[in-house]
Amino acid sequence: MQDKTFLMIPGPTPVPESVLLAMAKHPIGHRSTEFSAILKEVYADLKWLFQTKNHVFIYAASGTGAMEGALSNLVNAGDKVLSCIIGNFGARWANIAQSRGAIVEKLEVELGQVINPEDLKAKLAQDTNHEIKIVTLTHSETSTGAKNDVKTLCQIIKEHGAISVVDGVTSVAAMDVKMDEWGIDVLVSGSQKGFMLPPGLSFLAASERAWKVFEQCKYPSFYFDWAAHKKAVEGDTTPWTPPVNLIVALQTALNIMKKEGLENIYARHERLAIGLRKAVRALGLKLFVEKDENASFSITSILPPEGISVPDIRSTFKKDFDIVVANGQKSLKDKIFRMGTLGYVSDRDLLTAVSSLEAVLKKLNYKFETGAGVKAAMEHLFATK
Amino acid sequence: MQDKTFLMIPGPTPVPESVLLAMAKHPIGHRSTEFSAILKEVYADLKWLFQTKNHVFIYAASGTGAMEGALSNLVNAGDKVLSCIIGNFGARWANIAQSRGAIVEKLEVELGQVINPEDLKAKLAQDTNHEIKIVTLTHSETSTGAKNDVKTLCQIIKEHGAISVVDGVTSVAAMDVKMDEWGIDVLVSGSQKGFMLPPGLSFLAASERAWKVFEQCKYPSFYFDWAAHKKAVEGDTTPWTPPVNLIVALQTALNIMKKEGLENIYARHERLAIGLRKAVRALGLKLFVEKDENASFSITSILPPEGISVPDIRSTFKKDFDIVVANGQKSLKDKIFRMGTLGYVSDRDLLTAVSSLEAVLKKLNYKFETGAGVKAAMEHLFATK
Repeated sequence: MQDKTFLMIPGPTPVPESVLLAMAKHPIGHRSTEFSAILKEVYADLKWLFQTKNHVFIYAASGTGAMEGALSNLVNAGDKVLSCIIGNFGARWANIAQSRGAIVEKLEVELGQVINPEDLKAKLAQDTNHEIKIVTLTHSETSTGAKNDVKTLCQIIKEHGAISVVDGVTSVAAMDVKMDEWGIDVLVSGSQKGFMLPPGLSFLAASERAWKVFEQCKYPSFYFDWAAHKKAVEGDTTPWTPPVNLIVALQTALNIMKKEGLENIYARHERLAIGLRKAVRALGLKLFVEKDENASFSITSILPPEGISVPDIRSTFKKDFDIVVANGQKSLKDKIFRMGTLGYVSDRDLLTAVSSLEAVLKKLNYKFETGAGVKAAMEHLFATK
Repeated sequence: MQDKTFLMIPGPTPVPESVLLAMAKHPIGHRSTEFSAILKEVYADLKWLFQTKNHVFIYAASGTGAMEGALSNLVNAGDKVLSCIIGNFGARWANIAQSRGAIVEKLEVELGQVINPEDLKAKLAQDTNHEIKIVTLTHSETSTGAKNDVKTLCQIIKEHGAISVVDGVTSVAAMDVKMDEWGIDVLVSGSQKGFMLPPGLSFLAASERAWKVFEQCKYPSFYFDWAAHKKAVEGDTTPWTPPVNLIVALQTALNIMKKEGLENIYARHERLAIGLRKAVRALGLKLFVEKDENASFSITSILPPEGISVPDIRSTFKKDFDIVVANGQKSLKDKIFRMGTLGYVSDRDLLTAVSSLEAVLKKLNYKFETGAGVKAAMEHLFATK
């Protein structure tokens, strides 16, 4: 059916009608007092969302742009960077660090697993001369659906004297991320995720400790330059022409978020993700991230039942029910499928997802007790609200 | 009056309703076959618009991002770059080159003037060891309204053996820019200009000669990386999550442009800009760029009559007629005001602009023959269509 597509991928995610309509307004001048008033409000709300007193910069860029905006303002050629890698997006940090000439060490785990704080401690203990300047982390690893214990890991990084650079692309605005309280030094995120916006904006905040490292950076990126952005934020403006329409839409989305409240946003994402996990187990399917405590609340990776292929599952979802679910990436391609419960997603959408998953599996001749998934999801919703 | 604002600044520019509504559609998955089909069409149309056989990359970034996307893929620290500067945006090239560690030489002219080809020849003749690797140029200098003779200048640069890097932000899709025929090596542009789109996308195309320099670049930007973008374009995709909604809107805008045709687009911009210039002269006002042959067709800088201030002119335009015109930038602030005739602008809009300009000047007690501007504009429209 035309225009009936429902996205259950980890981004882009569904966008509320009011946000779409805000975006469709005629652009206004980006140096006008009217637009400055919008930016002033948005900048304040982003601090609330990032749980920080630091400025939050808005980049006209995708999440990868904000990742470059982090490392291109910190790394000099020859610097040592430790990248904690639990999937593709963790590996991206390492690639960006290398593109700036860094010497990159890696702490890698098997896909589906998370960083063990003891392993990070041991790795840093080997760095006896304290040469490691930066440690990169992923909070919610979109490629696997695993979640690192950022709070504990950042504490360890701080104790070693390095700065932590955290990918919060699929965690900010979906899962609790206390930038200041947890001692995160650099936190980035993107608009097409928990923010309930289309792609095109990304965000970065940096701690005082990170600013000290920035001051030593020899060739900071001109476009992503922290100093230019700081000056602009303090003047309720942006250094370069911003995506005016997306920022007007961001104002609308932030107002929706403020009405719901941070705790409710986090609780909703947890409720939907755990509900989905319970339903998946009730159907006899396996979760790629086995332990709930290691699971992202934004994206859930599911193994197909034996004899049924991921492409068949995805195409049946799409063809019969206009639902888009994601494949695995790279080595996980056709090994897992990934369902997002991220952003503008409600209890009703969980029931939609689980009942459709049952129908897809039934059609592909998987044997299970019809309704078991919906029952598990339903009971979880009742028990947690 | 609410929501009645009309932008006559050099960006953002007015956006057609069909483009706004295309942008307001629910985002679709950026790795879907549906989106690949859109990208395939858009990539082909961008080649047509850039008058090139080279790939045209789409960056999720403002025009400044594409400028960084040019130099960050070409410059190594210590390289020699010559920046031809006729205004702020020419100076931006120099700043970006410096941010990458380049040794920057400058060929500067008085604001309002353009680069004299003989001066460029003389400057390059001093570079007897052919150390200058890159020469940066601005086609339409948005801060002054002057237009360089890019065709002649690029020929001189080519003969010297350097590569030309050209800012076409307010020229592509408004003024004739023949990338291949004129031998432009790198050409960048942005969406909120002649493209009739909101800000948020920018574009870059590079010649074979530029690719050879790219291959020697030690630390190309990860986000703007040409190799990653080339691979993506060839697979009808993008390396990172693209601003899906803006690209769907771009498809609509390109279809509007194809219907009008390149020659008609250029003729319309020339007709409106020259019509505005004739009207300004008929009112006894002075143009900042005196000669028509040096004038951009996107933006016209006007000196206020003696005794009337630029802020008064701008605020009267805004308050009485909901028209936004731009101030001068930096040293030109309050010295000139700038009126855009860029993108989705028609003959009717020129009459609107000129009649409003007359009303503004009349209200501010400037003495002139009422109707002289409209008469000049009208006659020019009749004579050129």
